[in-house]
Amino acid sequence: MRHSIATVCLSGSLEEKMDAAAAAGFDGIEVFEPDLVVGALSPEEIRARADRLGLTLDLYQPFRDFEGVTEELLADNLRRAEERFRVMNRLGIDTVLVCSNVATATVDSDEVSAAQLRRLGDLAAAYGVRVAFEALAWGRYVDDYRRAWRIVELCDHPAVGTCLDSFHILSRGHDPSAIEAIPGEKVFFVQLADAPRLSMDVLSWSRHHRLFPGEGDFDLAAFVGHVVATGYDGPLSLEVFNDIFRQTDTARTARHARRSLTWLEDQAARRSAGTDLGTIPRVQSPSGVDYVEVKAEDTSAVETMLSQLGLTFRGQHRTKPVRLWSSGSVRVVLNEQHARDREPTLAGVGLQVEDAVASAARADALGVSAVPRRTQAGEQRLTGFAAPSGLEVFVNDSHPDGEPRWTDEFEHGRPDERATYSHVDHVNLVHTWAEHDEAVLFWTSLLGLQAPPSTEVASPQGLVRSQVMRSADGAIRFPMNVAPAVGGTYPEHVALACDDIVAVAQAAREAGMDFLHVPANYYDDLRARFGLPEDELALLREHDLLHDRDRHGSFRHFYTPVVGRLFLEVVQRIGEYDGYGADNAPVRLAAQSRHRR
Amino acid sequence: MRHSIATVCLSGSLEEKMDAAAAAGFDGIEVFEPDLVVGALSPEEIRARADRLGLTLDLYQPFRDFEGVTEELLADNLRRAEERFRVMNRLGIDTVLVCSNVATATVDSDEVSAAQLRRLGDLAAAYGVRVAFEALAWGRYVDDYRRAWRIVELCDHPAVGTCLDSFHILSRGHDPSAIEAIPGEKVFFVQLADAPRLSMDVLSWSRHHRLFPGEGDFDLAAFVGHVVATGYDGPLSLEVFNDIFRQTDTARTARHARRSLTWLEDQAARRSAGTDLGTIPRVQSPSGVDYVEVKAEDTSAVETMLSQLGLTFRGQHRTKPVRLWSSGSVRVVLNEQHARDREPTLAGVGLQVEDAVASAARADALGVSAVPRRTQAGEQRLTGFAAPSGLEVFVNDSHPDGEPRWTDEFEHGRPDERATYSHVDHVNLVHTWAEHDEAVLFWTSLLGLQAPPSTEVASPQGLVRSQVMRSADGAIRFPMNVAPAVGGTYPEHVALACDDIVAVAQAAREAGMDFLHVPANYYDDLRARFGLPEDELALLREHDLLHDRDRHGSFRHFYTPVVGRLFLEVVQRIGEYDGYGADNAPVRLAAQSRHRR
Repeated sequence: MRHSIATVCLSGSLEEKMDAAAAAGFDGIEVFEPDLVVGALSPEEIRARADRLGLTLDLYQPFRDFEGVTEELLADNLRRAEERFRVMNRLGIDTVLVCSNVATATVDSDEVSAAQLRRLGDLAAAYGVRVAFEALAWGRYVDDYRRAWRIVELCDHPAVGTCLDSFHILSRGHDPSAIEAIPGEKVFFVQLADAPRLSMDVLSWSRHHRLFPGEGDFDLAAFVGHVVATGYDGPLSLEVFNDIFRQTDTARTARHARRSLTWLEDQAARRSAGTDLGTIPRVQSPSGVDYVEVKAEDTSAVETMLSQLGLTFRGQHRTKPVRLWSSGSVRVVLNEQHARDREPTLAGVGLQVEDAVASAARADALGVSAVPRRTQAGEQRLTGFAAPSGLEVFVNDSHPDGEPRWTDEFEHGRPDERATYSHVDHVNLVHTWAEHDEAVLFWTSLLGLQAPPSTEVASPQGLVRSQVMRSADGAIRFPMNVAPAVGGTYPEHVALACDDIVAVAQAAREAGMDFLHVPANYYDDLRARFGLPEDELALLREHDLLHDRDRHGSFRHFYTPVVGRLFLEVVQRIGEYDGYGADNAPVRLAAQSRHRR
Repeated sequence: MRHSIATVCLSGSLEEKMDAAAAAGFDGIEVFEPDLVVGALSPEEIRARADRLGLTLDLYQPFRDFEGVTEELLADNLRRAEERFRVMNRLGIDTVLVCSNVATATVDSDEVSAAQLRRLGDLAAAYGVRVAFEALAWGRYVDDYRRAWRIVELCDHPAVGTCLDSFHILSRGHDPSAIEAIPGEKVFFVQLADAPRLSMDVLSWSRHHRLFPGEGDFDLAAFVGHVVATGYDGPLSLEVFNDIFRQTDTARTARHARRSLTWLEDQAARRSAGTDLGTIPRVQSPSGVDYVEVKAEDTSAVETMLSQLGLTFRGQHRTKPVRLWSSGSVRVVLNEQHARDREPTLAGVGLQVEDAVASAARADALGVSAVPRRTQAGEQRLTGFAAPSGLEVFVNDSHPDGEPRWTDEFEHGRPDERATYSHVDHVNLVHTWAEHDEAVLFWTSLLGLQAPPSTEVASPQGLVRSQVMRSADGAIRFPMNVAPAVGGTYPEHVALACDDIVAVAQAAREAGMDFLHVPANYYDDLRARFGLPEDELALLREHDLLHDRDRHGSFRHFYTPVVGRLFLEVVQRIGEYDGYGADNAPVRLAAQSRHRR
């Protein structure tokens, strides 16, 4: 199908929006009237620019408050419409979006609305224009797509059809399956937006919180399935009002938007075929973390911590200033290459998949930028992509029985026989508010991670939004935090899973590790909350361990202080505990805040 | 009455919050349990610090999910409570906030809840603690303060009373007058928060959008009146969860909070007395703008514009590098003193009041910082205050018949006989999101301005929130914008009112003024929207004039380009038009964005 985007989704001038949409691979755009009105370019210039860019101008929108009005108002509405049709002719746009009346409707009658739309249809036909009538979720009388369709049916005019917008339909909880009753040729346009499930008035929800497909809670693949079943062959078009996208880089948002449509179409194709035949190579969920990479001009402070925590030095890379530490399947790569003036940062994460080549092909189809990495002869070629925060994500064929082949590039050192750690439990990523939604789509579309409901944790400088991205089996867990807008940089961290955290903590302390100190008040609180026995409290207090429990098990963990923009966490899951100790995050944040001083 | 603040209102560590509350003049604090738990200081240290600071510790909060539970759960809840009572004894706090059960209640019975609270009362009494039971707006069964009070009455225990929170009562639309039926000695605590009227789930509303009194839509003066009528003599305490305050400077937020209580108490006193006897000098609404002050290292670009717009140069100040331009009652002061490297900015605004000395006394009582200004012998002493954005606000006794005395300090030049302008129509101020609510309270509390509902206007970089602050008679109009978080600085502007904008525009163009160009598409849009006649459209187009109308009249205006961080607007109100041409703001913003390139 063809792919379109409403100019209201993007920031900047109409020219910038058109350039970005074309560069991101859209076939067409919806011209949002205010973008035209405030712009310097004439309709003829817009039309010529679209021609040059290879973009079609698919829809002129919105035309408001037309139907269900008094005869006197109708005359003025027809006059208004005719002015717009003239502009549309100059633009060469043949379809106008007419939203159900919000402000001026006084007549609640399908027959009256149909008759008035028929007069609009006559006028439109004279200009070669088609009218796509849409039920706004907050329309005065018409707020359900099924009613809009009834009116269009009654209207029975070749120039009048309907526009289906996923937000207006799904936000109201209306069953989208009745879409299939509409003949495809009477569906004049289809607009798509996802959204989080929120409990607020639907107008504010629509105006501020729409998301691109794959980032919210709506089942858009099913929605598209119903649309396809009608025989509709027009464009799938994005219409996403969102305070964030309007403030972010136009070209980047356009690529992000385009990716969401590719993902959606693939989802819908697989769903409706009932087979595994999508439009792009299938998604592969990673089976584990291959390695994490820390970059810094000087990685020695991190290496000291790794040593104190019981990881083993595995040697220097044959050709680069890169060193490897490991324990069990935990592998930490320390990279000092091209890192002048850089303090320790989480720079990359390697993931194991069944078929790295197919994963790379999927990333390419989704328009994700590849990360170039120089490799010498004989070295394993890794395939990498840039995540929205700049994190480099590499995929590697999984190696369940033994070490990955790339470890041979390090000069000496076998892995420890008795490993302290089993695996990387989770990697905590940090985004700005502008990167967050794009990151959700990145992990969902590229690697099939899932997004359970998000939470908020308190820091001394405000609430931190936390969204876990995880694979279905929990092998991959990436809690993603949105840092408060002020208060400086917010560190990321890697959590290592062990079986005996008390022994790890004791050994680390004996090796001189600087623990993040947990205040005594915390243990008084644990006693009150959980009624823990005194000897257990004493043990936790002695080792600065934090505790949590859920219905399935319990959790002990501790943190290192922050080094650069990074710290480490050691965790022990007991039973089937499935969380991350979120209730303890404020304790950690406050302790880190004290430690910084 | 005594004044208190919950530590959850402020950012930082518990120590920082205590210091800031004491410095701002609060008498006491509510200790928010998580602030204690994550902190390094022991309860004994907190207690000693409060003693030193002269702060009382008025409430320990919150204790959750106590009542309406099974007998088994009750036993654990009493155990939890006893642990908290021990901590309270160490802190020396005698009142605990017990919120109505949200999560674990299974028994919907006043009698059961009362019996369970009676057992809590017995336990509390043994520790010298009082229980203040509060209905949360989203409590499982108890979500109305009247029901909470019925349960407390049934409970009939000297250690069990109720806590009244304005948010929980007013957000649900519950009539607060029934408060007066509660005996004052059974009201154990009173918490105050304002909020904007929002249509969203009450938990999110409470957690993210509470405001300090005077900044939202609740009638808190009436609320406090009902509380006072009970004979309650405990503290009035602020409990405001707000994403912004938690990210802003602790000391500043504490002062802002304290000001809101002073304002509220004064409002409540005047209201209940039915007289004009408040706790601080009465508010005086300004009768007009005395002058606006522009500061820059070099003000000549602004002076060129003033000259082109037809204002008259009135000379240099006798002792300072300051110059005056005027027309009618429009006076623009151009100040190059102490302005090294500063580009043109709106630095101050002078306002006329009936009694400047009394206004200054009110500002002082509200804890508003005075602005020092050096004056020489024989010069008029102006009284100034710093607004939240840093704007200097001066008040001067009004001078309806003639020029203010301070203009004599300028060396020569009489005002024009035939003035082009009548007065300053409005001054558009810009705030960061962190300053906005504080600014609303500043103008409301200090000068009695009113805040009609806010709007949003589209800019190329996102929506701009716009809140007009105005005096009842419209003599003072300050539209305040919250700029998008990204996209650089956002200019402020001063709008001058004239009677013949076509003549002004023509003269300005002949004088070589660089107009902000309005695109042709805008005039096509005007034709469609308003059906304006072609000759009027041609006139508007010729002079780059913008047009708007409302039920009361119409509006013509134009803008200068931005100079530094400032621009000027010329407006003509025809009939009783009462707006600001908000629909044209996107046209202006897009044109300014083009002009910058």
